[in-house]
Amino acid sequence: MKVSARNVFKGTISKLQAGAVNAEVDIALGGGDALVAIVTMESVKTLELAAGKEVVALVKAPWVMLMTDSHDVRLSARNCLTGTVKSVEPGAVNAEVTLVLPGGTEISSVVTREAVAELGLKPGVAATAVIKSSNVILGVSA
Amino acid sequence: MKVSARNVFKGTISKLQAGAVNAEVDIALGGGDALVAIVTMESVKTLELAAGKEVVALVKAPWVMLMTDSHDVRLSARNCLTGTVKSVEPGAVNAEVTLVLPGGTEISSVVTREAVAELGLKPGVAATAVIKSSNVILGVSA
Amino acid sequence: MKVSARNVFKGTISKLQAGAVNAEVDIALGGGDALVAIVTMESVKTLELAAGKEVVALVKAPWVMLMTDSHDVRLSARNCLTGTVKSVEPGAVNAEVTLVLPGGTEISSVVTREAVAELGLKPGVAATAVIKSSNVILGVSA
Repeated sequence: MKVSARNVFKGTISKLQAGAVNAEVDIALGGGDALVAIVTMESVKTLELAAGKEVVALVKAPWVMLMTDSHDVRLSARNCLTGTVKSVEPGAVNAEVTLVLPGGTEISSVVTREAVAELGLKPGVAATAVIKSSNVILGVSA
Repeated sequence: MKVSARNVFKGTISKLQAGAVNAEVDIALGGGDALVAIVTMESVKTLELAAGKEVVALVKAPWVMLMTDSHDVRLSARNCLTGTVKSVEPGAVNAEVTLVLPGGTEISSVVTREAVAELGLKPGVAATAVIKSSNVILGVSA
Repeated sequence: MKVSARNVFKGTISKLQAGAVNAEVDIALGGGDALVAIVTMESVKTLELAAGKEVVALVKAPWVMLMTDSHDVRLSARNCLTGTVKSVEPGAVNAEVTLVLPGGTEISSVVTREAVAELGLKPGVAATAVIKSSNVILGVSA
């Protein structure tokens, strides 16, 4: 598989909590980093998802929001992953910003250059990647 | 908190309708403008969401769709917010279009320049911002 | 209606499976192409969705992920639509890639130029458009 998504996280399901319609899937990415995905129970069956199974989690970079100075707020999004800015690649209007999490996982985000300036994003700065768990697509080996 | 999302709406929860899994949260933005968000019941508990509580609603600009001549269609998206184009900032391929709603709320959207031409978007033109309620992230003070 | 979304699929509901909260809506696009949307049961009632009804399905191009060499993976996203690349329009950072499905349906996606290079996307190449069913907005005539 080759995929256009800039974020292809390889991990192992650490916990799967089944609901009536959806399931919450906790994924260990290595180094202590983790991600939560919400998928339908139908996907749980079709993909035979269960604790211990290896998965890839796909997230397009424009679906990732960045936040700084997050100490005074709590969000409804399940994934608020704090790390350090590794690089900022500016384009005409947008910039691709890559964070590194404490465990070594890298997360790419596309945000406006205006946001890069407002948040003071540059290598070494602490920032939080916000990803809605419903925006994570899971894949398994066929 | 500083956030990359171009839309940071401050408001007050006017109504919260709890479901088995998700809750529908109506947010009054002031001036009569309003927004609907869908969040999990777990977020309702964690963030202690309830009618009367102050929240911020975050929406990335690329998640906002624009529509004109909407009189002949009804959409499944809960937020169809009609206002007036305030500004169009063209980039190489995309443009950032800002609408003003009747109550004064401003909404930023990133769409293609092709769409700007097709819809005839320019200051003063009436347009509708379409936002899926599941694409709204809620935040509360920590 | 004029809409900024680059993907406006006209089709007919071939099947509607109602759940407690959401409904899964199968849409026949013509020529054998098909799309699945998840909408709330409230939208089913409000829009009077039912098998046989004509609908439009709206999907913004940045919500479409592209994949090649997909034989070795299965994804949680319901729409994995394999077709052939028709065109690639490069911008500064991103490119708009259009696929044609076997039945003639065209799907536009915005991905990074980096992804275009990695996946070897050019006219004639086989590729799969991945669309989460919850990212499809349905519309009906008013």
